[in-house]
Amino acid sequence: MEEEKKRQVLVIHGPNLNLLGRREPHVYGNITLDTINTKLAEKAELLNLNVSVLQTNHEGVMVEEIQKAEGRFDAIIINPAAFTHYSIAVRDALAAVNVPAIEVHLSNIYKREEFRHHSVISPVAVGQIAGFGAESYIMALYAADCLIRGDKA
Amino acid sequence: MEEEKKRQVLVIHGPNLNLLGRREPHVYGNITLDTINTKLAEKAELLNLNVSVLQTNHEGVMVEEIQKAEGRFDAIIINPAAFTHYSIAVRDALAAVNVPAIEVHLSNIYKREEFRHHSVISPVAVGQIAGFGAESYIMALYAADCLIRGDKA
Amino acid sequence: MEEEKKRQVLVIHGPNLNLLGRREPHVYGNITLDTINTKLAEKAELLNLNVSVLQTNHEGVMVEEIQKAEGRFDAIIINPAAFTHYSIAVRDALAAVNVPAIEVHLSNIYKREEFRHHSVISPVAVGQIAGFGAESYIMALYAADCLIRGDKA
Amino acid sequence: MEEEKKRQVLVIHGPNLNLLGRREPHVYGNITLDTINTKLAEKAELLNLNVSVLQTNHEGVMVEEIQKAEGRFDAIIINPAAFTHYSIAVRDALAAVNVPAIEVHLSNIYKREEFRHHSVISPVAVGQIAGFGAESYIMALYAADCLIRGDKA
Amino acid sequence: MEEEKKRQVLVIHGPNLNLLGRREPHVYGNITLDTINTKLAEKAELLNLNVSVLQTNHEGVMVEEIQKAEGRFDAIIINPAAFTHYSIAVRDALAAVNVPAIEVHLSNIYKREEFRHHSVISPVAVGQIAGFGAESYIMALYAADCLIRGDKA
Amino acid sequence: MEEEKKRQVLVIHGPNLNLLGRREPHVYGNITLDTINTKLAEKAELLNLNVSVLQTNHEGVMVEEIQKAEGRFDAIIINPAAFTHYSIAVRDALAAVNVPAIEVHLSNIYKREEFRHHSVISPVAVGQIAGFGAESYIMALYAADCLIRGDKA
Amino acid sequence: MEEEKKRQVLVIHGPNLNLLGRREPHVYGNITLDTINTKLAEKAELLNLNVSVLQTNHEGVMVEEIQKAEGRFDAIIINPAAFTHYSIAVRDALAAVNVPAIEVHLSNIYKREEFRHHSVISPVAVGQIAGFGAESYIMALYAADCLIRGDKA
Amino acid sequence: MEEEKKRQVLVIHGPNLNLLGRREPHVYGNITLDTINTKLAEKAELLNLNVSVLQTNHEGVMVEEIQKAEGRFDAIIINPAAFTHYSIAVRDALAAVNVPAIEVHLSNIYKREEFRHHSVISPVAVGQIAGFGAESYIMALYAADCLIRGDKA
Amino acid sequence: MEEEKKRQVLVIHGPNLNLLGRREPHVYGNITLDTINTKLAEKAELLNLNVSVLQTNHEGVMVEEIQKAEGRFDAIIINPAAFTHYSIAVRDALAAVNVPAIEVHLSNIYKREEFRHHSVISPVAVGQIAGFGAESYIMALYAADCLIRGDKA
Amino acid sequence: MEEEKKRQVLVIHGPNLNLLGRREPHVYGNITLDTINTKLAEKAELLNLNVSVLQTNHEGVMVEEIQKAEGRFDAIIINPAAFTHYSIAVRDALAAVNVPAIEVHLSNIYKREEFRHHSVISPVAVGQIAGFGAESYIMALYAADCLIRGDKA
Amino acid sequence: MEEEKKRQVLVIHGPNLNLLGRREPHVYGNITLDTINTKLAEKAELLNLNVSVLQTNHEGVMVEEIQKAEGRFDAIIINPAAFTHYSIAVRDALAAVNVPAIEVHLSNIYKREEFRHHSVISPVAVGQIAGFGAESYIMALYAADCLIRGDKA
Amino acid sequence: MEEEKKRQVLVIHGPNLNLLGRREPHVYGNITLDTINTKLAEKAELLNLNVSVLQTNHEGVMVEEIQKAEGRFDAIIINPAAFTHYSIAVRDALAAVNVPAIEVHLSNIYKREEFRHHSVISPVAVGQIAGFGAESYIMALYAADCLIRGDKA
Repeated sequence: MEEEKKRQVLVIHGPNLNLLGRREPHVYGNITLDTINTKLAEKAELLNLNVSVLQTNHEGVMVEEIQKAEGRFDAIIINPAAFTHYSIAVRDALAAVNVPAIEVHLSNIYKREEFRHHSVISPVAVGQIAGFGAESYIMALYAADCLIRGDKA
Repeated sequence: MEEEKKRQVLVIHGPNLNLLGRREPHVYGNITLDTINTKLAEKAELLNLNVSVLQTNHEGVMVEEIQKAEGRFDAIIINPAAFTHYSIAVRDALAAVNVPAIEVHLSNIYKREEFRHHSVISPVAVGQIAGFGAESYIMALYAADCLIRGDKA
Repeated sequence: MEEEKKRQVLVIHGPNLNLLGRREPHVYGNITLDTINTKLAEKAELLNLNVSVLQTNHEGVMVEEIQKAEGRFDAIIINPAAFTHYSIAVRDALAAVNVPAIEVHLSNIYKREEFRHHSVISPVAVGQIAGFGAESYIMALYAADCLIRGDKA
Repeated sequence: MEEEKKRQVLVIHGPNLNLLGRREPHVYGNITLDTINTKLAEKAELLNLNVSVLQTNHEGVMVEEIQKAEGRFDAIIINPAAFTHYSIAVRDALAAVNVPAIEVHLSNIYKREEFRHHSVISPVAVGQIAGFGAESYIMALYAADCLIRGDKA
Repeated sequence: MEEEKKRQVLVIHGPNLNLLGRREPHVYGNITLDTINTKLAEKAELLNLNVSVLQTNHEGVMVEEIQKAEGRFDAIIINPAAFTHYSIAVRDALAAVNVPAIEVHLSNIYKREEFRHHSVISPVAVGQIAGFGAESYIMALYAADCLIRGDKA
Repeated sequence: MEEEKKRQVLVIHGPNLNLLGRREPHVYGNITLDTINTKLAEKAELLNLNVSVLQTNHEGVMVEEIQKAEGRFDAIIINPAAFTHYSIAVRDALAAVNVPAIEVHLSNIYKREEFRHHSVISPVAVGQIAGFGAESYIMALYAADCLIRGDKA
Repeated sequence: MEEEKKRQVLVIHGPNLNLLGRREPHVYGNITLDTINTKLAEKAELLNLNVSVLQTNHEGVMVEEIQKAEGRFDAIIINPAAFTHYSIAVRDALAAVNVPAIEVHLSNIYKREEFRHHSVISPVAVGQIAGFGAESYIMALYAADCLIRGDKA
Repeated sequence: MEEEKKRQVLVIHGPNLNLLGRREPHVYGNITLDTINTKLAEKAELLNLNVSVLQTNHEGVMVEEIQKAEGRFDAIIINPAAFTHYSIAVRDALAAVNVPAIEVHLSNIYKREEFRHHSVISPVAVGQIAGFGAESYIMALYAADCLIRGDKA
Repeated sequence: MEEEKKRQVLVIHGPNLNLLGRREPHVYGNITLDTINTKLAEKAELLNLNVSVLQTNHEGVMVEEIQKAEGRFDAIIINPAAFTHYSIAVRDALAAVNVPAIEVHLSNIYKREEFRHHSVISPVAVGQIAGFGAESYIMALYAADCLIRGDKA
Repeated sequence: MEEEKKRQVLVIHGPNLNLLGRREPHVYGNITLDTINTKLAEKAELLNLNVSVLQTNHEGVMVEEIQKAEGRFDAIIINPAAFTHYSIAVRDALAAVNVPAIEVHLSNIYKREEFRHHSVISPVAVGQIAGFGAESYIMALYAADCLIRGDKA
Repeated sequence: MEEEKKRQVLVIHGPNLNLLGRREPHVYGNITLDTINTKLAEKAELLNLNVSVLQTNHEGVMVEEIQKAEGRFDAIIINPAAFTHYSIAVRDALAAVNVPAIEVHLSNIYKREEFRHHSVISPVAVGQIAGFGAESYIMALYAADCLIRGDKA
Repeated sequence: MEEEKKRQVLVIHGPNLNLLGRREPHVYGNITLDTINTKLAEKAELLNLNVSVLQTNHEGVMVEEIQKAEGRFDAIIINPAAFTHYSIAVRDALAAVNVPAIEVHLSNIYKREEFRHHSVISPVAVGQIAGFGAESYIMALYAADCLIRGDKA
């Protein structure tokens, strides 16, 4: 049966997230990106989703991976990290492809420096989740599942 | 055994949310507040949580319900609605009580009028979830559960 | 005949308007709220309209009275007074109900302190009338009558 | 008897209002300036007022017509159109003559582009009426009548 | 003798001040509102004043208590708390009644978040006292006494 | 007994305060600086404090007197006058010495020109008192006494 | 054949452009308006278009010439010069008529004083061309031709 | 001798200055424009200058009179009145002609509404004189004489 | 003859332009980048120019291609797309090389989101062309030809 | 006869004006302060005025000299130089004394850095003269003479 | 002896610095990057330091080289060039690694365009050196040496 | 030989720097001004320079010492401290004398309060050094030496 084909979710981690666990643990906690990815895979298993993970420090790479998502992924979970605040190129890529995107942040960006309060990504995302550490991603996966099923409560 | 005591979550719906389903359905969808509350109760059941629900159009009532939450609730899920953007009284109440709060919005407030892009509540919340319709609440309940268990991924 | 049923207009006076006549007469004049209400009733008589009047100093009460207007009133005349400048809850209530609203001010708010030049209510009202003292209300009733008749010149 | 002399009201229509009915009907409606002027004449008849009407696309002409109003007119009804937002020359003319002015707008300028939210004319007018289409003018005539009679409610 | 009639001072405590002693003690100290009220009563005794105390979390209640002060109180001491920064309704009430008001803050609001640096109340108060903890109130009572005696040094 | 040593309070009057009584009496009243100083001395007597008074129109002198206060004074009462709004040098001096400072203003600076609403001194003072004329100083002396005794209510 | 009727293009030169060649040649070059008009005529010849040229220093005249363009011209090429930055009347005229407009500037306005960086005309034009001297006009004629043919590449 | 040819000064009075003496005498005084022009003629006589005077309420006329000044006048004295604050067309005309201009204001524009504090004309004038009533013009004539003689002190 | 050597023009397409035709067709139309490039080649043929085309989503690549243009290209046509609004690196590269650049936009950026109204590239370009779809490029090629020939009208 | 007593004018030169002739001659010209003072003395002779001149680089000195002017001088001519832009102490001194002040600048401050466009002194001066080099002072002396004679044209 | 191990300093040159000597020599001088690197090597020799040099036009590369510096370098000298003003990704990388960074600029960025006055890098650097041409780097190496030795004067 | 004449460097320490070592050691460290001056003398010895040191809390004194530097000093090293942010008088003095100035700060002012991020001095200095504690001065002396030798790398 064709329903057996698993739905695909692309998870994009932005610049410096490869340092997670080492970088400013008072802000980001001790968890590493590998652990987050493992948790995502486990959760995906439960939801019968397939998760592909990407971390990049290059804006151009992020743009192109988003472009390639069209037709290959059913949803994007993106933590744009520093790009959140200035990368209109990433914003334009998300607006250009026909794949719903969910914006994720580990920390509560509204408790931090003022320049982190503004996201150029938010207006082209379905929604945002911020401040729950690694759980932000798990919640995003749940949201992606809802979006894909079309049963947005 | 004392572990059998269910943990308590307070859900606060702000002004005009009692109109949900009737009010601007192109923005907020057709779901009613009752349906959301029912979904929350079902999800709480699964998570072995107890959910108490409150809707108010009165800032003073919201302030006092938050004040009374201390010692009685383990987490607050709050959709401050219009109060999001100016009620420093609600903000101060949340900051005053020792109960973690999760800010929830049905719509993606960053796609709407500019005055809705700023929240006076966010800096005193653990985190925010916005844009996923009623699922925003379900995700918040999941986050509350994580916070209560202390296993913030 | 069904035309015999009078159309209903709700008149809402905001905070501190109960002091009219006593409060800063150099700004608001010597007329009292009772006199305004009497004038409104007389004018309504002429226009074959029914006027219900409400004064409240409570934002929550104003929100709920607006909510209840749906299906019961054909138009709202509202002088939001201080709420004009910050009550997004009142704005959201007006936007939520399907009753046309007319914003009224006794004084010319553009001649006063700068913070009084901005109204959060205006974008959800049909129109505004400001600066004509009690006559502002009478003109609003005339406008309400036009709106109800559907013959907006 | 000298009371028999009719009071005079000057109605000034600003730039591009001569296109009314043709210009952006989704904003301004289908009514033409001629129709508005006819309605004003009829209403004036009822109020025992004399109405003189002027439309100009020239700021200098508008300034000079306002200057000449002193001693000849008892009130000015002005829809400054585009000049609303920058013509300090028109503002100064209104402030210079001893004739009360009423500012009128067909559309609710607070629902439109942000630059239309600010009026340089309002602080020198008695009051403003905006958003009621052609009825805005009729209401202004009523207000002018009140001002002239000196019985500002 | 009629001088024997004690002068009346109304003390208004704004939202969340009922939590004093519990709420953010690093900001507000450990003293409770009851203790402050007792201190005020003792000081009033010395000054031969009568003090009436009110705490409310409701803007509408605060507005109405201020309205009722006219003719019954000789001075108002008000700590508007969160309302300091946005309640134009409270400001308008203070401006409307003929009772001098003294604005009081426990903490030095100029050392705190930027949004707490601006008071909408200050321009309608006689003066402000901020940063001296509970002594701010005692000083305000002293100031009220001076105002009442009319011997403003 | 060592308690017999009187505590020392330095009172600093900023630029143009030497003109008090002559300068803009509608703003500052008719009282002279000498009278204020006499009142302060009398009040100090009652509180068993020693008051040293200084008036200067020179920023550099004010800075150096503040610097010299360390170890010689237990509290500073300062009316920085015009320096309130721009003298970061005075601010830095106050922050550099280990003597608590109380900011005083004769007039309610929030009722005056907008540039007087901002104080660069407030964030380094214990608190502010503004608007009570000469009584502002008396209240500051009371506050200084409380600070010195350490019994900040 | 009806195709033989030449399409009509209106070229409007704004205030002070009559001085071209004399006025600030380091900014605008040495070419005169006559030369530009001749070049436009030659180019129009090649494109089988008819060009009508107008220079005015009067805002009201510009407004009225735009109004009269409806039904008589197929495209407008406009260099609003100083009016670019404040003439909402010109903007409204362009928005009111059903003729596509192309905004042209001789100089690169983004290299000049900051107040020249903002155009109130741009949002109602099809597009802008700036910085190519007289060639800006030739390019605009080419663009007008494309618009008229409907084959916008 | 060729020195006998008198030097020419153009004096331009902006919009509403024709009302001088009647218009807001608390701001502009009781002197009329005719009196000012007579005084200018007398002063010019003394300085052996010829003065031509122009008053206009039309921006386009002012622009064109400035354009025509080149080669015919040795200096321009201009009171742009309301145009001071927005007429970039007048500014561009002054910048385009090779005639030094002196900006004059009757009132001290820095004591008036905030929008009158900014002049778009000043950066292209030689200098400004403001606040001395009709004497502002006399001083400007003196300045023009100095500029023409080339002996700028 | 040396004139036979064709002049070289570099055309740079910025991020996400590779999606043209697929990306938001209501904004950018249905034309693909290949079609634009073909049109450019055809037009270049007519103008006896050689066109080299580059599309990149990488800021660093764009910077380096601009750097390499010096000495190899006679003009650059650049549509910086998202980089228009923040890439100071691209701006600096254009300013560093001695090759004139022409800024091109498919859409009228002044009709879109406010953040698209500002270009960091414009001040270092010769000029801009915006809003004519693919024709914007053709017009830019025409402008490049003029620049190269040195006969800037 | 008492009319024989010459009227007194105080001329105050602000910081760095002692360097005149040496300091940035492209901005301030080659004339020295001594030459200006000599010219002022000569002009004063003609007007039967006595001129006292003061140059100081010290704000406190300037404040005190202004304070001492009361009762001893009939007018003050002040070039506050750098103090123009921030010295509220100088402003307050001028406002405090009952001597009319005329603000003078050698250069046209509106052609220079943006921070020089704002004067904190202007609102308390009678008027300003800027941009005429040393003649600015001569014109100010003429204005002072007019003020003293009370025959403000 | 372990002291014999040389300490390592990473020098990062940002975008377009590879053009040094060719690029805008009036701003950056004629020196090439190679010459600067040679000077740095010579100075490092004297200080017994090892210098590794990197130039990149790619933000992602800069981010990753900074990430790799941890544990391998004792200090970073960085001239972020254009990235200074917007690359939060570079800022986050510097904040994430435990290596002190020194910000260097060849030119005095505060004398240039306003957008160059703000650095997003400064708050995460130890300090900045700007305006001394190539010597800025030599001074930074001296500062790095001090930091490494721990004897910050 | 004339080369034997040592070059002269003036070092100016601004307000409150005399407190160094005592003042806010968490910001400025424990080093005293004497120690810094000694270090400067030692370093000067090595560079064959003569250093004269001045500390002042008086703006006027700083202005005059800078004025006197012309012809007597070859370079100025200035830490304007609080004056950095508002003393246009100091800025003008530096701009007026023909001696290159180097701006120095002990702390990284970009990590501190926002008002410390802006320097009015920077645009008239050769360059800035900030954040290296006392070493900032040593580096400045090195830079002064380079400037004097004319061999700016």
